[in-house]
Amino acid sequence: MSDKQPGWNWNVPFSLTFPLENGLSPDHASTKRYLSAMQGMFADDSAFEEAMSVGNPLVYEFFELGAPSDAGDLAFGTSITYPGKVGNEYYMTKGHFHTILATAEVYWCIRGQGLMLMENPEGDWNLQELTPGKALYVPKRYAHRSINIGTEPFTTFFVFRADAGHDYGTIETKGYRKLVVELDGKPQVMDNPKWREEER
Amino acid sequence: MSDKQPGWNWNVPFSLTFPLENGLSPDHASTKRYLSAMQGMFADDSAFEEAMSVGNPLVYEFFELGAPSDAGDLAFGTSITYPGKVGNEYYMTKGHFHTILATAEVYWCIRGQGLMLMENPEGDWNLQELTPGKALYVPKRYAHRSINIGTEPFTTFFVFRADAGHDYGTIETKGYRKLVVELDGKPQVMDNPKWREEER
Repeated sequence: MSDKQPGWNWNVPFSLTFPLENGLSPDHASTKRYLSAMQGMFADDSAFEEAMSVGNPLVYEFFELGAPSDAGDLAFGTSITYPGKVGNEYYMTKGHFHTILATAEVYWCIRGQGLMLMENPEGDWNLQELTPGKALYVPKRYAHRSINIGTEPFTTFFVFRADAGHDYGTIETKGYRKLVVELDGKPQVMDNPKWREEER
Repeated sequence: MSDKQPGWNWNVPFSLTFPLENGLSPDHASTKRYLSAMQGMFADDSAFEEAMSVGNPLVYEFFELGAPSDAGDLAFGTSITYPGKVGNEYYMTKGHFHTILATAEVYWCIRGQGLMLMENPEGDWNLQELTPGKALYVPKRYAHRSINIGTEPFTTFFVFRADAGHDYGTIETKGYRKLVVELDGKPQVMDNPKWREEER
């Protein structure tokens, strides 16, 4: 965290900049996820070790402005997933359910080329391609993960209910049912060999 | 309304385009507000009559996608306020409170130069300038009106809780406490002569 953490008062109007060209706000520090934070999330563990052996690249970053956890407030910011692969699997975000499962999220892509991989607890899954200008509705109950399938930073503006919360644990223990790899130069959806139904 | 009204299923992921250059979605019809719909909202009634006598210009348009009125859903779209004036008062949206007063709204400006005029029932008011890349938080309890002070269409992307609702009536009967006019070529905030406390 940098010193760029203004204490917004969410009961008074405020504005800040997310530049349209790259989404990187000069007014607030981003949260950065390096590859080391994503151990076990990519399918190919040896490719992960190999990628880590030559450094610890930044996979994605996003902005958390610290909205109060209130159903009347909204959290918002930008998310930037960088281009790259671990083995043949594209760089992606961890992805998460909302803790209050029945809360939606809106994304608007401003740069790059990416996919949003979504699935709900019932096992329905969905993949939407995002390019600049595409807006996406992530409905209630859908976990969502950004995947960069292009060569530029995949950049989106997002908004969700401020009390929704992030449940990363379910994804970290179970994984996603599907994963997206590059095959013959194109994105291909595959079953995730690491995915497992919850043990009970 | 055109025939471009796809019946989104808000429980399944979907995407649509809001082009970054102008916000005008090719995938859905916009709602258009012509000057005739804004009788009495500008301070100068004779300037209003004069403007109407030469036509009925489009003042603003925005996208309503028909989100279900559910606290877990989100309404989103773009809003485009055109450049122009009635007398010396800039083109603006009607503005509204949310019916569920304690619900916020997020705006992100992608084009043009505008102001968001906000006030709450307690009489606190606030004005924020928006230019491309500026994101704005309209807190709970604040009525909000877009005002175009530039020469291009003032274009924003917005998101709010889908059950928030629009209370236009309070603004239509009471007006805003403040208005923004052009004085010596610059925007100037003034008391609204038409504003009145609610009669009880």
